[in-house]
This record gives sequence, C-alpha cells and structure tokens, in this order.
Amino acid sequence: MEFSIRAANVEDCKEISRMIMELAEYEKVVDKVKVTQRDLEQDGFSKNPFFHGIIAEVPEQLKSKEGHTKIGYALYFFSYSSWKGRAVFMEDLYVMPDFRGKGIGKALMSKVAQLGMAAGCNQLNFTVLDWNKSSVDFYLSQGCTDVTSELGYHYMSCNGEALEHLAQP
Amino acid sequence: MEFSIRAANVEDCKEISRMIMELAEYEKVVDKVKVTQRDLEQDGFSKNPFFHGIIAEVPEQLKSKEGHTKIGYALYFFSYSSWKGRAVFMEDLYVMPDFRGKGIGKALMSKVAQLGMAAGCNQLNFTVLDWNKSSVDFYLSQGCTDVTSELGYHYMSCNGEALEHLAQP
Repeated sequence: MEFSIRAANVEDCKEISRMIMELAEYEKVVDKVKVTQRDLEQDGFSKNPFFHGIIAEVPEQLKSKEGHTKIGYALYFFSYSSWKGRAVFMEDLYVMPDFRGKGIGKALMSKVAQLGMAAGCNQLNFTVLDWNKSSVDFYLSQGCTDVTSELGYHYMSCNGEALEHLAQP
Repeated sequence: MEFSIRAANVEDCKEISRMIMELAEYEKVVDKVKVTQRDLEQDGFSKNPFFHGIIAEVPEQLKSKEGHTKIGYALYFFSYSSWKGRAVFMEDLYVMPDFRGKGIGKALMSKVAQLGMAAGCNQLNFTVLDWNKSSVDFYLSQGCTDVTSELGYHYMSCNGEALEHLAQP
C-alpha cells in the first residue's frame, strides 16, 4: 500500500488527538486521556517542545471509510540513560486498524529509530502493555528486549496530590 | 545534617560520573556503564541538553571519608504522555551510603518534582529495580504508583545491531 511518513506539524494536532483517542479505546483507558488538541499544539510545537511527532499518510484515493488520510502516528522525545547515554523514547505508535499489516507501523518505528540515531542515540525505549500480545511479539521479533521481564525494572509514577505533596520543600 | 541541593553544572560531571559508577556497583551492573565524564559534559551541558542534573552537597567539615562533598545527585529530563501531557522523568537518584537516612534522597526527589511542576508537568516518572525493596517501599510511601504491577506496562529497549537494523529504511 502506498503511504508516506513525514514530520508532524501543528496542523496535524487535530488528527493526532483523534488517533490518541482511538489508541486509548484500544487500550481500554479512554477515561485517562486528558490531553486535548490544544495541549498538543502548545506542548509539541512551541519553543523547547516536550515531544516530536511523525505522521503516516495515505493518498486521497486510499482514505479510510471515515475520510481520514492521516492514518498513523508516532510521538517521541529524547531522553538519557546514565549508563548508555543518549536515548530516544517512543511514547506512542499507532496505525488505524484498517491499515495494519502493511508495514506502516514498522515504517513509523523505523523512522523514530533513524531520527534517534541521527541525534546520537544508541537506544530506543518504550513501554508496552503485557496483555497486548501482538505488539509484544512484534517488538520482540524486531530484536527489542523486555527490560522489565529480564532485569526487573518497574515503571513508577507520581502524580496528583502525591506529586504536589512531594514537591513541597 | 546540613546539606544543600543545587542545579548541577559542567564542573560537576567528574563527581556525577563517580557516583554513577557507585550506583551501578550497588545495582550490580558496572559493566553496563558506558557513559564517561566527557559524555556527561557534552550531553548535559551543551545546547539542547539530553538531561538536567541536581547535586546534593555537604559542607567541607562533613565531607565523606574519601574526601567528597558532593554526596548525591539526581538526573532528570522532560518527557510526555499522550494521555496526561507534560511529565518529568527522574533517571537517577543516588545518595552515598554514609549519607542515607537523613532526608537527602527525599530532598533531591522533591526538587525534581518542584522543577517538573514549575515546567507544567503533572507527572513524575521513573523506573526502579523490583529487588531493590527499600527503594520500592520508599517510593510507595511517597504515594507513587507501580505502573508495571498495576497496569501491566513493561519497559522495552532496542539497541545495538537490532537498532541499526530497525533504522534501515
């Protein structure tokens, strides 16, 4: 299938926001999504952006039944490992269901890897839900390591009142 | 105990590098540390740094038996959640053994939380080794959530030849 991958720009935020919601529906966490189109515009496309994005697009004649030509995306940001140095973190990787199995997800992930390596990164990191077997299998088939299973690293988070309390001097 | 927390600068990289090695010894992964003092200087203190750091220092009269006054550090960088928006990621949190139990680790973590909230972040994320029970207990006592245990998120990584292969178009 004909498709292209390009850097996201501020005009893509409406469609990214739509796809974030679709991904959340798939992951069964719609109620946890607080990020709006406006947030994406501010956080990703002002000075010192918090993330970068890439978009997968198909030509008009291949648009989805709902009329979308932007049919996949990945968000990423640069990070750091005090052992291994520069790293790129892939926050989201999503392709609309009707467009799966055509190499678009792989192409998006490959682009994030390329962009990371071009910036001197020697690691691509991300998280995956353990029940999402098809994604886990895909990542393992690409030579990725499950750091949680192999080394015992757990991902932890502090937010809401706990974060406010912690931040008090 | 008298101590102070301040932003790290490029002159601190030698001591940060020493403490990264000490932390790696504690986590039993010394052979995995590839980052040098020079890497830290370049990656943290040039334009568009990959991380930021803070240092815990004691006065000269309280220096360690090896003569160190820089006795703890935390590294962090800004990240993003497509559900919850701006986030700060704490990459390392370390206090030298002789200086533990005096609130220095908590003060470092609190500072990262403050800096994150000041930048509009509503989440502080990090990873912890599941066998490091005292750290896990400390984080849980601060109201942190174990996202891996509760939601099933696994941390994955792609590097070396797998990353090079993935990045090929």
